[in-house]
Amino acid sequence: MDLYSGYINQLIEEFAKLPGVGNKSAQRLALHIINMPKEHVEHFANVMTEAKNHIHYCKSCYTLTDQELCPICANQGRDHTTIMVVENIRDLAAYEKTGKYEGVYHVLHGAISPMLGIGPNDIKLKELVKRLEEDVKEVIIATNSSLEGETTAMYISKLIKPTGVKVTRIASGVPVGGDLECIDEMTLLRALEGRTEL
Amino acid sequence: MDLYSGYINQLIEEFAKLPGVGNKSAQRLALHIINMPKEHVEHFANVMTEAKNHIHYCKSCYTLTDQELCPICANQGRDHTTIMVVENIRDLAAYEKTGKYEGVYHVLHGAISPMLGIGPNDIKLKELVKRLEEDVKEVIIATNSSLEGETTAMYISKLIKPTGVKVTRIASGVPVGGDLECIDEMTLLRALEGRTEL
Repeated sequence: MDLYSGYINQLIEEFAKLPGVGNKSAQRLALHIINMPKEHVEHFANVMTEAKNHIHYCKSCYTLTDQELCPICANQGRDHTTIMVVENIRDLAAYEKTGKYEGVYHVLHGAISPMLGIGPNDIKLKELVKRLEEDVKEVIIATNSSLEGETTAMYISKLIKPTGVKVTRIASGVPVGGDLECIDEMTLLRALEGRTEL
Repeated sequence: MDLYSGYINQLIEEFAKLPGVGNKSAQRLALHIINMPKEHVEHFANVMTEAKNHIHYCKSCYTLTDQELCPICANQGRDHTTIMVVENIRDLAAYEKTGKYEGVYHVLHGAISPMLGIGPNDIKLKELVKRLEEDVKEVIIATNSSLEGETTAMYISKLIKPTGVKVTRIASGVPVGGDLECIDEMTLLRALEGRTEL
């Protein structure tokens, strides 16, 4: 017998489609929505459709914005000759939160993954190459240090080097505050390889 | 500088208000919504408001339903003389999933908690007592075995006993498949106290 009414089941299903939301969390979230004041639910639903309707990719760096250019690309105070390449917008947000990076970004929206059938044409690579026609001095590759991230980094590096633009990769190593004994061997080896003189 | 546009920030805020959703998850969910096809977002928003508009408490047991009575209370095949009292709908769902309980339920929507200022009048207790006017033989108290759940169980038991209705409490003990050495002392003591003859 069906425990919940169709309305609740549909809402649970919708929540369960979201990333990182299992069946139990979806049930919890749906029941929470039902218990919220009606105006609040309507506001939430409205915010959702409004955001979807007004947000699109920045025409330069492909992050999300409701303008033609995102606030970072539109900011003339940033260094537009340095482009940091990230896999997704959350990675951009993470670097932006450091408050120390002054260049601009390029969001690939994915990484090359033969396993998942994602090739170079499925991510915003052509768009990156096109940006190099302008005055760009350095491309910093900040893809993840996963297999896909590394593959993508290698690919981009080979693609860009012939153009003469400097290509760098963010360092891989022991996280700040990390306890050596808790860190995997690959990271330890990377940290050793990447050692710098004091 | 504000990284995301106002639309995205609002959506992140809405998600972050949900239970168990932190700032990072909220960001992830909001960006996922933005990347979903437009029709899907509209459907989600619609399902949310529709569910809120059509769902209310069952007038008998106070679970959620879109009818006057929930499917359990409306089912004449269930044993209406046995009422299991639970703190919330998720607990009802958990027992219902066992498929073995044939009685009906009563959802308190909370538990007595002097710490949080939740008294007997803040949960559906009067409504439970009122149901005893009909032909009820047993009230099974299935509140959590937390401090609040136990307090509530004691309170209900004292409230109902004078009416002559049988009051029982679900057993507390070692979970099935549980490893004794991983179980806390309170549970071990409960399991000992509640031992049954073989």
